[in-house]
Amino acid sequence: MAFRFHIAAAILALVFTIVHASDPSPLQDFCVAVPDANAGVLANAVFVNGKICKDPKLVEAEDFFFPGLNEPGSTSNPLGSNVTTVNVNQIPGLNTLGVSLARIDFAPYGLNPPHTHPRATEILVVLEGTLLVGFVTSNPGMNMKNKLFTKVLNPGDVFLFPEGLIHFQFNKGHSNAVAFAGLSSQNPGVITIANAVFGSKPPISRDVLTKAFQVDKNVVKYLQSQFWRDNHYYP
Amino acid sequence: MAFRFHIAAAILALVFTIVHASDPSPLQDFCVAVPDANAGVLANAVFVNGKICKDPKLVEAEDFFFPGLNEPGSTSNPLGSNVTTVNVNQIPGLNTLGVSLARIDFAPYGLNPPHTHPRATEILVVLEGTLLVGFVTSNPGMNMKNKLFTKVLNPGDVFLFPEGLIHFQFNKGHSNAVAFAGLSSQNPGVITIANAVFGSKPPISRDVLTKAFQVDKNVVKYLQSQFWRDNHYYP
Amino acid sequence: MAFRFHIAAAILALVFTIVHASDPSPLQDFCVAVPDANAGVLANAVFVNGKICKDPKLVEAEDFFFPGLNEPGSTSNPLGSNVTTVNVNQIPGLNTLGVSLARIDFAPYGLNPPHTHPRATEILVVLEGTLLVGFVTSNPGMNMKNKLFTKVLNPGDVFLFPEGLIHFQFNKGHSNAVAFAGLSSQNPGVITIANAVFGSKPPISRDVLTKAFQVDKNVVKYLQSQFWRDNHYYP
Amino acid sequence: MAFRFHIAAAILALVFTIVHASDPSPLQDFCVAVPDANAGVLANAVFVNGKICKDPKLVEAEDFFFPGLNEPGSTSNPLGSNVTTVNVNQIPGLNTLGVSLARIDFAPYGLNPPHTHPRATEILVVLEGTLLVGFVTSNPGMNMKNKLFTKVLNPGDVFLFPEGLIHFQFNKGHSNAVAFAGLSSQNPGVITIANAVFGSKPPISRDVLTKAFQVDKNVVKYLQSQFWRDNHYYP
Amino acid sequence: MAFRFHIAAAILALVFTIVHASDPSPLQDFCVAVPDANAGVLANAVFVNGKICKDPKLVEAEDFFFPGLNEPGSTSNPLGSNVTTVNVNQIPGLNTLGVSLARIDFAPYGLNPPHTHPRATEILVVLEGTLLVGFVTSNPGMNMKNKLFTKVLNPGDVFLFPEGLIHFQFNKGHSNAVAFAGLSSQNPGVITIANAVFGSKPPISRDVLTKAFQVDKNVVKYLQSQFWRDNHYYP
Amino acid sequence: MAFRFHIAAAILALVFTIVHASDPSPLQDFCVAVPDANAGVLANAVFVNGKICKDPKLVEAEDFFFPGLNEPGSTSNPLGSNVTTVNVNQIPGLNTLGVSLARIDFAPYGLNPPHTHPRATEILVVLEGTLLVGFVTSNPGMNMKNKLFTKVLNPGDVFLFPEGLIHFQFNKGHSNAVAFAGLSSQNPGVITIANAVFGSKPPISRDVLTKAFQVDKNVVKYLQSQFWRDNHYYP
Repeated sequence: MAFRFHIAAAILALVFTIVHASDPSPLQDFCVAVPDANAGVLANAVFVNGKICKDPKLVEAEDFFFPGLNEPGSTSNPLGSNVTTVNVNQIPGLNTLGVSLARIDFAPYGLNPPHTHPRATEILVVLEGTLLVGFVTSNPGMNMKNKLFTKVLNPGDVFLFPEGLIHFQFNKGHSNAVAFAGLSSQNPGVITIANAVFGSKPPISRDVLTKAFQVDKNVVKYLQSQFWRDNHYYP
Repeated sequence: MAFRFHIAAAILALVFTIVHASDPSPLQDFCVAVPDANAGVLANAVFVNGKICKDPKLVEAEDFFFPGLNEPGSTSNPLGSNVTTVNVNQIPGLNTLGVSLARIDFAPYGLNPPHTHPRATEILVVLEGTLLVGFVTSNPGMNMKNKLFTKVLNPGDVFLFPEGLIHFQFNKGHSNAVAFAGLSSQNPGVITIANAVFGSKPPISRDVLTKAFQVDKNVVKYLQSQFWRDNHYYP
Repeated sequence: MAFRFHIAAAILALVFTIVHASDPSPLQDFCVAVPDANAGVLANAVFVNGKICKDPKLVEAEDFFFPGLNEPGSTSNPLGSNVTTVNVNQIPGLNTLGVSLARIDFAPYGLNPPHTHPRATEILVVLEGTLLVGFVTSNPGMNMKNKLFTKVLNPGDVFLFPEGLIHFQFNKGHSNAVAFAGLSSQNPGVITIANAVFGSKPPISRDVLTKAFQVDKNVVKYLQSQFWRDNHYYP
Repeated sequence: MAFRFHIAAAILALVFTIVHASDPSPLQDFCVAVPDANAGVLANAVFVNGKICKDPKLVEAEDFFFPGLNEPGSTSNPLGSNVTTVNVNQIPGLNTLGVSLARIDFAPYGLNPPHTHPRATEILVVLEGTLLVGFVTSNPGMNMKNKLFTKVLNPGDVFLFPEGLIHFQFNKGHSNAVAFAGLSSQNPGVITIANAVFGSKPPISRDVLTKAFQVDKNVVKYLQSQFWRDNHYYP
Repeated sequence: MAFRFHIAAAILALVFTIVHASDPSPLQDFCVAVPDANAGVLANAVFVNGKICKDPKLVEAEDFFFPGLNEPGSTSNPLGSNVTTVNVNQIPGLNTLGVSLARIDFAPYGLNPPHTHPRATEILVVLEGTLLVGFVTSNPGMNMKNKLFTKVLNPGDVFLFPEGLIHFQFNKGHSNAVAFAGLSSQNPGVITIANAVFGSKPPISRDVLTKAFQVDKNVVKYLQSQFWRDNHYYP
Repeated sequence: MAFRFHIAAAILALVFTIVHASDPSPLQDFCVAVPDANAGVLANAVFVNGKICKDPKLVEAEDFFFPGLNEPGSTSNPLGSNVTTVNVNQIPGLNTLGVSLARIDFAPYGLNPPHTHPRATEILVVLEGTLLVGFVTSNPGMNMKNKLFTKVLNPGDVFLFPEGLIHFQFNKGHSNAVAFAGLSSQNPGVITIANAVFGSKPPISRDVLTKAFQVDKNVVKYLQSQFWRDNHYYP
C-alpha cells in the first residue's frame, strides 16, 4: 500500500535538512558501528571517537537500512513538533561516513525551536506546508547586531542552515507540516537553546542567567521551573 | 497552491540521499559562492578549491535558498530517470559547507544507472514507489568477489551508499517513483560508469576496453557508438 | 622564588582559553592574510574560505605579532566583562594556522555570558581571581536533561569547553579578574545566546520566541527592546 | 652519465603512483596497526576507523619496513598485469599516516584495467616501458561528454590520477613494463570497474545492467558468466 | 586600574603558545581519554589514533580540569628553562578536541632551545620578562637561505610559530621570565633539535652527523657524549 | 626472470618516498595551479592556501605530467646527494590533491642529511644500492632518550618516515644509489636541520645556539660561517 502524505485536512510538509560534516574521513569502505550497549559487553567497554565497528565479514545490507520515516511523529506536546532522528545510533552503517537524517513533523503553529548543531550544517527541503525559517549569524563586531536571515518556505523549497548557527523552523499555517532534516555528521548533536540554558541539570546559577538575560530573578526562577521537554525522538 | 505528490495513477517516490563530506571545514559563518561566470568578470578569472565568495556584506537570504523541487524532472529518455541536482552551482550559500541535494524521478522501470560519487557518501529516503537499490564493495583481495549489498526499498525506507562505491537505484514497479538525493559535498561529482567508460571524449582506446571487459571488439565498437546521455539535470 | 599573581588590592585572573581547530591544514609554511579592506582594492574584491594572502616575499615578522594584551579592556558595561579578541583579523599570520586568542577581563561579579564558538574548542587558564565556569552538553535523548559540567576555578586552574557547546565564565569575587581565551580556529566565531536570540536584526518573530521560551509575549517584547551590547572588543 | 633503465632484452618500467590522502591526521608519532587477525584475539575483536594499534613501547623498525618490491609479480593472467599492493595490511606502521604503495608489472600489451580508488589520488612514475595512460572526468553537465585526459608515458615520466576518477594503464609495447603505484591513503581501495559491475556477488540484476549499458541481455549474461580475476596481489 | 605584570625585583613573563591543530574532528560532545595505563587493564591493551575513551556516563567536571599552572617549574638545569606540559595525558577531556597547553619558565638567560612541534602551530603571549623569539622557514629553493623571522617580545606581546617550523624562545633579561605555551593538538609532540640529533638512543651514525654538520668527528663525538636533558616536565 | 637493478659498475638505488597528507580535500575533480608568477599577472597577485587555479575549460593532459625523472641529478657537492623535487610547482595538476614526488641520487657515501617535512609523511623504496636510513621520535618524556628507528635497506626495500619526524638516508656503499621520494602533500616543505639552524638568514643569535648545543662559541661561529647548500633541485 502506498505511502500517503495527505491525511484528512492536514497539509503535510517534508522538510529536508542536511548538515555539513567536518567528520574525519573513512579509512575503509565502511566501519559499521557496534551499538554502545554491545560495545561494553563485546569489548570490555571500549569507546572511541565515533564508534567501534563490527567485524566487516559480518556486515549485511540491514546495517545500512532504516525503515519507517513514512510514519509521522507525535506532535502532541507544548512545541507542537517532533523530530525523528536517524543517525549512527539508528543506522550503524553511518559510522565514519559523515551524514545523518531526521524527519520533522509540525502541528499547526508547531515550532522546532531555536537550536544549534555543534557538528553539522543543515539543509532543509519543505515537502508540504508553509514554514517560516531563519538563522542568526555569530557576533559581527562592536555594537553591531547579529543578523537574521529568514524566509517563508513553501513545498519544494530548499533552505540551508550553516554549521553551528542558531536556527528555527515554525509552521505558520493552520494545517500540519512534515519535514526531513539531514545532518552532515554521523552524530551532529542538537542544542535546544531554551533547554540547555534554563533546563540543564544541575541548573546554571541564577546570578549568571539573571545578568546574561538582564531580567528579574523571578523570571529566571520561573523559566528554570519549567519542564523542558526535548522534541527529539530517537527510534 | 499545494505541492501534490499524487498525480493520476502515478505512484511517486521521494528518495533522499546524503553523501558523506570530506570537504574542508568553513573558516567563517558562510562564504557564499560567486558563480564561475561572474568570477571571471569580477576577479580576472580567479578559481580556487571550491569557489571564491561574495562580499559578506552583500549576502542575503536568497543565497541560501532554492525553489522548485516539487516539480518532477522529465524521464522521457532511455534510462527512464532524471536527477535534478541542487549543489553549490544552484545554491551559492553551500560553498564551504559540505552538502548538496538532488531529486530523482523514475518512470516505471526507470533506472539511475551504476555510478559513483568521487567526493561523497549518499543517503537515500524513498517517499513513494518501490526501488531496488544496491552498492558493491571495492576489491576484497585475491580472487574473491566484490560484494553486492542490495535491498528493496518501500516508502519511508532509508538506505546508505558509502563514499566512492558503485551504486544504483532501479524502479521495480509499473508506476512512477520520486526520490531525493543528498550528497555530503558541495560538489560531490557523479561518474556514470557506462558514460565514463564508453562515452568519453576522446574515446578510450578499443584495445583497452576490449581487454578490460573481455568482449569482442565489435561489442566495444557498438557501445562506443551509442549516445550516452547524462540523466542529470542542473537547473 | 614563587610566581605571585596577587598585586596590591587587585585580584587578577588570567584565563587562558584555546579552542579546538577543525580548520583546514596549511599548504605552505604560512599564508599571511591580506586584510579584507585591502582584498577589495588589491584583488577586485576576492574573498575565499579564510583569507587571501600576501605575496610571501613581502612577509615580515610584524605579520606574526600583536602587542598590548597587558592592557585590561574596559568592563564598564552591564555585563562587567570585556573580551579582547586576537584572531586572524588582528594577526594576519594566523591565516590557515587554526588558532586564535583572547583576553577576558572581569569586573567584580562580571560575567562572560552563555555563548558558543561554532568553529572551536576553548581552553581556559585562570591567572588571577575566582571564576565560576561551566558548559552544558547537547540534548542527551528523550526527556533527559542537558548536563551542566561546572567548576570554581582559582589562579593556575585550567578548564576546557568543547567545540560548539554553550559555556560561561562568572567572576564570583569582589575583585577584578583577568583571563586569556585561546580559540582553535583562526576565526572561531562567537554566538552570545541572549544577543543572537533576543537582539538579532531583524528580530526573530515573537510567536517563535514566546513558544520557544514558554513565557508571556510581554517578556519577549521586553527582552527584544533591550540594547544587547556585545562584550567583545576587536582592536 | 645517464641513469639507464634498459637491461638486456627486458624493458622494465617502474611506474610510481601515489594517491591523494584525505585520511585523518595522526595524533601521535605513529600508531602501528595490530593485524586484524590479532585484533580479534588481543582485544575481543575491536575494529575501528583504520586499525587499532600496538603498544608503542613494543614498536620496532620492522614495523615500518617491507621488502621484496624488486621481485616482479606474475602477469600470466588474461589482463597480462599484476599489482603488488603494499598498504597498511603489509606495513602496519602506515596506520594513521595516509599513504600506501604498489608495484605494477605489465606483460607485453598488459593492462591495468579501468578502475577507481575511492579514497586516494594516484601519481605514477614510469621506470621502464611505454604506457598509454588516461583518466576520465566526472559528468560535466547536460549532454556533454566525460573528458578523457590521456598520454603516452616513457621511462622517467610522471602522471597523476585525481582521487576517485576512473583511470587505466596499458602497456603499448612488445616488451615487459614495470611500475610503482603509490596511494595517498593507508587503505585507498581499488574498484575494478568490470569486476564490480559484472562480477559482484551476488550479481547485479540483469535488468539493471541491460538498461545501464544498453546492450542485449545476452551480452550481460555472457559478461556475468566470466571469471573476473582481480589483478591485485597482497603479499 | 591597570593590570600590572611587574612585581618588585621579579620580572615575570607569561608566554602563551597555541599550536595549530590538524587533529581529526570530534564525533561527539567529548570523548574523555582513558589513561594508557588503564587502557591496558580495562580493554586488553587497546590503543588507537589518540586515546580510547571513558564511558560517557562516568564523565565528570574533573576530567576537563587541571590545576597548578601558577606554580613555576624548576629552571635549575643547563638550559635555564622549564616547560610544564598540559596535554591529553594531563587533561583527559582534551582527547579529540585538538588543543593543549604549556607553561614555560625561564631563569635569567634561560633558553627554550630550537625545536619543532610536528603536529601543531604555536601562539605565544609574554606576560612578564623580555624574550627574544624566532622561527626559521623551510628550505626556500636552490642555494637560497632559510629565513629567520625574529622579534623581541615584552609583556603583553603575542607571537606565532607556524606548524612544524624550528623555533626558540630566549630570555634576554637578567630576571626570571614566565610563559604559557598553547598547542593546537591534543598531543603536538616536541622535537628538541639537539636532543633528537645528538642524543637519540641508539645514537645516529657518526658518519651521518659528521657529513651533515660538516664538522670534525671529534665534535660529533663530544656532542653525542653530552647528557641531553629534556626541559619538559609532564606533571 | 628477476627484475635486476644493477647495471655495469653503477649501483642504482631508487628510493621511493611518500609523505602523509593532511592536505584539505578537493572540492572538484581537479584545480590545476596557476604558477605563482602568472598569479600576479593574471589576478592582481592573488595568493591563497595552496594555489589559485586555471579555468577548468583550459586544462589539458600536460598539466598532470612531468618528464625526466630518468635523469640523475648532479651529486657533485659536499653532501654527495641530490633531491629532484616534483611537487605542485612542477606539476600544477597536483594542486588540492595532496601528493608530491622526488628522486634522490646518492654518490658513494652520499647523504641526504637529517631533515623534516613539516607537512607530510614519507615512504621510501630503494631501487639500487644500499642505504642506511633512520628516523628519531619526538621527546618521550622526562630524561628519556629520543628513540632512533634505523634499518639498512637493499633494492626493493620500502621504509616509512612519519610526518614531521627527523630522518636521513645515507649511501653506505662505494657505488651510486638512486631513490624516489614521494610526499603526501602537494607542498610538503623540507627543513634541513643544519641549514635551518646554522645557515638561516639572518643568523640565529650565537647565545641561543651556544646554549642549545652546549658547545664553545667558536664552534657555533665556525658552523655559521659555512656555506649551507641545499641539496634540493627544483626543475
